Amino acid sequence: VDLGGTRLRAVRIDHEGHVLQHRSVATAATAGPEAVISQIVALVEQVMDGVSRADIEGIGVGSPGPLDPFKGVVLRAPNLHGWVDVPLRAMLQERTGLPVLLNNDGNVAALGEWHLGSGRGCRDFIYVGVGTGIGGGIIVSGRLLLGRKGMAGEVGHMKVQLDGPVCSCGKAGCWEALASGVALARFAQEALRAGRPSSLHDRAATQPVTAGDIFAAAAEGDALALDLLQQEGTYLGRGLVSLLHLFSPDRIALGGGVAQGMAWLEPHIRSVIETQAMPPFRDVPVEYAHLGDRVGVIGAATLLLTPMGDQ
Amino acid sequence: VDLGGTRLRAVRIDHEGHVLQHRSVATAATAGPEAVISQIVALVEQVMDGVSRADIEGIGVGSPGPLDPFKGVVLRAPNLHGWVDVPLRAMLQERTGLPVLLNNDGNVAALGEWHLGSGRGCRDFIYVGVGTGIGGGIIVSGRLLLGRKGMAGEVGHMKVQLDGPVCSCGKAGCWEALASGVALARFAQEALRAGRPSSLHDRAATQPVTAGDIFAAAAEGDALALDLLQQEGTYLGRGLVSLLHLFSPDRIALGGGVAQGMAWLEPHIRSVIETQAMPPFRDVPVEYAHLGDRVGVIGAATLLLTPMGDQ
Repeated sequence: VDLGGTRLRAVRIDHEGHVLQHRSVATAATAGPEAVISQIVALVEQVMDGVSRADIEGIGVGSPGPLDPFKGVVLRAPNLHGWVDVPLRAMLQERTGLPVLLNNDGNVAALGEWHLGSGRGCRDFIYVGVGTGIGGGIIVSGRLLLGRKGMAGEVGHMKVQLDGPVCSCGKAGCWEALASGVALARFAQEALRAGRPSSLHDRAATQPVTAGDIFAAAAEGDALALDLLQQEGTYLGRGLVSLLHLFSPDRIALGGGVAQGMAWLEPHIRSVIETQAMPPFRDVPVEYAHLGDRVGVIGAATLLLTPMGDQ
Repeated sequence: VDLGGTRLRAVRIDHEGHVLQHRSVATAATAGPEAVISQIVALVEQVMDGVSRADIEGIGVGSPGPLDPFKGVVLRAPNLHGWVDVPLRAMLQERTGLPVLLNNDGNVAALGEWHLGSGRGCRDFIYVGVGTGIGGGIIVSGRLLLGRKGMAGEVGHMKVQLDGPVCSCGKAGCWEALASGVALARFAQEALRAGRPSSLHDRAATQPVTAGDIFAAAAEGDALALDLLQQEGTYLGRGLVSLLHLFSPDRIALGGGVAQGMAWLEPHIRSVIETQAMPPFRDVPVEYAHLGDRVGVIGAATLLLTPMGDQ
């Protein structure tokens, strides 16, 4: 189950990651936890339709954080009304009679890519999701990095400069504030307001410029769009260099909306790694994630494949 | 065994960390690997004097990196002449008949503090050594973070700003280039050359200013020294915030020469964490490491206490 602020998705998958059933509904985001949990239970029943309950291993749930994966409690879900300290795991276990595992959306996406996507076979693997914000998850020696209270892996809040734009967390200098999709759009708006010629002006006249607009303009050779993507790739590369030096992973995968422009970003990311990482760290593959926009819901299911023995 | 560029140390310790024997000699740094290995063997025999070989579990060696802890090979030791691809573990095993484990100096210091010092009882723990450079080691879920080829934990080469002073690694923006002991001394020299009044001028007239000089001046209320230590604590704090967000450890310990000024640094470190870390990450203790300048050699011995099953 992928519990999103706007969309609620459920899949049934097998051990090979084949999606056997898929259902989604608009999240009743303003109706409170009980209503949303009823929606989840209904979706779960739909994707289990025709299957013996004995053949279902359990339910994995990915949710916006902060949450406590050990206790299975959503501490706060900013886009969901009334979600404070919701014991989601216990409530779903009681309503479905099945084992339930809960983790945050960055971690479940990392697990999904690790088990079934670009990280398959890696012992040490990092997934970075670059969308509205920057989230992710980190696999260390074949285990999900959780840390104290299960809060580790907040890659978007690495400090990559001493000041700069203010992040969603309220502080300056975070990677997310420089390299997220929101940051990319903000840099685009600033350049347009400063009068840089670009085909993006037409779009900006009617609605906010998105990462997708910038990719489309870049494909037509728009100079501003190409500059923005060079800067984006450079900012992404700087954070990735820190992750390489800290974790020395076998592979890094980038997902999320901004990573859809990997073709434009990749040369700039690679250039930063080649010039800024220490030599033995440079040959780590940085790839586009495989699972696309289903990474959240498929990843949630892979919680059932992940040993959690050390919790 | 702590293999340093200037000093070679060996201790015999028991499981509680009591130092039962201690010997050291000046490292024959210019004489090549064979000569240094003979020194190590002689020191080992001295600290084992009077003990049955059957009661010795093995030899742990901490060495400057880069090295391959899985193969037990020192790839390069910049301060030791002729040390390129030296199979130190195999050579010592052959010469002593004892099991040998090898890791880099940052990692063994972290293991020492974790087993026997400030990290005792932690599941997730980070040691940061702030001396000439910034090194360290990271314990994740009760295991040393090694990564691909055993190279993880290069905390000093996190990128904390987009440009700035050039690091020992040749690149700009590293934590080490802003917050190491060498960086602190460089900022002091710059301020003195710029004509800031300070009692440090007397010292600087005859020899390079050290971190210890700055602590001494701060103790006498020297305004420049206090400013330099505020800046140092602030730079240290910025990197620590990234480590908190990435690893969510139970505790962080600071060691090395610069950490001896913890009394002056701690309020500034704490202030950065309180203002820059996300709220649930702020209550992690950041402490002065317990083992002092013996952390390297005691830590090396604790390699024998550390399960390496996942290698």
